[in-house]
Amino acid sequence: MHPFSDRLVEAVRVKGNPCVVGLDPRISLMPVFVKSSSAEQTISDFHEIVLDAVAGLVPVVKPQLAFFEQYGIPGMKAFENTVRAARERGLLVIADAKRNDISSTAEAYATAFLSDGAFDADAMTVAPYLGRDSLTPFVTACKQHGKGLFVLVKTSNPGSKDFQDQILQSTGRPLYQSIAASVDELGKEVLGASGYSSIGAVVGATFPEEARTLRSIMPRACILVPGYGAQGGSAQDAAACFNDDGLGAVVSSSRGITYAFGNADISRDAFARSVRDNTLRMIEEVTAAVKAGVAS
Amino acid sequence: MHPFSDRLVEAVRVKGNPCVVGLDPRISLMPVFVKSSSAEQTISDFHEIVLDAVAGLVPVVKPQLAFFEQYGIPGMKAFENTVRAARERGLLVIADAKRNDISSTAEAYATAFLSDGAFDADAMTVAPYLGRDSLTPFVTACKQHGKGLFVLVKTSNPGSKDFQDQILQSTGRPLYQSIAASVDELGKEVLGASGYSSIGAVVGATFPEEARTLRSIMPRACILVPGYGAQGGSAQDAAACFNDDGLGAVVSSSRGITYAFGNADISRDAFARSVRDNTLRMIEEVTAAVKAGVAS
Repeated sequence: MHPFSDRLVEAVRVKGNPCVVGLDPRISLMPVFVKSSSAEQTISDFHEIVLDAVAGLVPVVKPQLAFFEQYGIPGMKAFENTVRAARERGLLVIADAKRNDISSTAEAYATAFLSDGAFDADAMTVAPYLGRDSLTPFVTACKQHGKGLFVLVKTSNPGSKDFQDQILQSTGRPLYQSIAASVDELGKEVLGASGYSSIGAVVGATFPEEARTLRSIMPRACILVPGYGAQGGSAQDAAACFNDDGLGAVVSSSRGITYAFGNADISRDAFARSVRDNTLRMIEEVTAAVKAGVAS
Repeated sequence: MHPFSDRLVEAVRVKGNPCVVGLDPRISLMPVFVKSSSAEQTISDFHEIVLDAVAGLVPVVKPQLAFFEQYGIPGMKAFENTVRAARERGLLVIADAKRNDISSTAEAYATAFLSDGAFDADAMTVAPYLGRDSLTPFVTACKQHGKGLFVLVKTSNPGSKDFQDQILQSTGRPLYQSIAASVDELGKEVLGASGYSSIGAVVGATFPEEARTLRSIMPRACILVPGYGAQGGSAQDAAACFNDDGLGAVVSSSRGITYAFGNADISRDAFARSVRDNTLRMIEEVTAAVKAGVAS
């Protein structure tokens, strides 16, 4: 398989935008028409409609594991169905798992999400607290299987200041910049023909100043930018994560796409239209902001 | 349900030791007799034998999610079976999941592992990098459902020095001590009658000096000590995590208990005996070291 970074750059070029639709199954928020007695069926059906609506529009979807796991085994079956349905429609899949552990345990997580077995996504998110040696098994899996990694660097929540923003004596800079430097270093081993690395980072849309610095520390990283929309980040804020070539980042929205349809009694067609319209609006805002950012 | 910390203290008293048997399913390492064509069956059967062998001996088991997830849906079904089988045998279950995320996503993980639905463990491990607000939904779930939390503070791997050991300008001390202070603070909200909190910490057995400092920063926390045995920590090292009352920590071993049986052609009875013998040896070493540590 081609390196993930090249597949991502190509998909962004083909679709003409860097937008990611987040898939956060919350059955209580879903339209009435989709609800059946089975959580697996309900979630899988809901996502099939969403995927049909967005497959022609965006390059990537991002299922969030937590929302599947909360439904137990039926939820995890729906995760498997959703990943398969997305890939069948030509979409790249980032498993938003925020996993991590050490040595053989990290290898097991890489096998779960980044091999061709088990859940078989194109990329996953991981947490960095355990240190560089905890990231290595994931990097190895990315090299072997053409998969991608997004390491949490600076998250979009207020609490990201508690530990991530702490200034280190050794560098005089915040912790998150040290982690970004590690991402850049690890990423050199997994560069694609596009010049981008398959080892990327998560940088929240709510801190554009920090994002500009992080962009310069990790020039080759693909940055996953959550926090656009419902979490308070604007398209202009997200644009700070892009390089001058208009590439190097993808921007994610979840609730603003799939749960912004109003009344739960909405029809299937109206729901699909709502998802499509919300996605088109996001694409317009994000591409305009990135263009303006590059021009400025 | 009684607070997790009280249930843990009581279980340690009843069994007379603070040992945790880690359950890391790796089918390739299992005895031939247990292997069937189904990963779910193989893992579930393997763990039933292990659980029957250790249920009368130790207070807690710790299934490691990564090793289940690597087998996809059959692995997750085996996780569900294993948790149920452990609880039926009166064992406490710590889901070693190292999850975390923000706001409603953290709530979803708490629902997955700390409510009475989905996977229904007694406690889980979480990662702290996202900040204090990412831990709050888990703390709330612990309060509501009598469950417990173990926050990664100082892990047993060499790479734990990369970020965890960084000295912060604001405190002049390592990052992991700030996280320990947050664990202590959050833990005050979930104190049991035993004086211990249901908000605990993970502190690797490989750094006894650091463990003594952490014990004093978090006097009320239940500390989960991995890294005993296969990862190089000794029982004496692990003893540094205990309070003078001989309580306040549990020590975990995985491979040294379940995969130290020698030849894969071993019989079912001989395998069960090996698990029992390895567990008894661990109990002897750990209880002696804790007693010596308290006496010194």
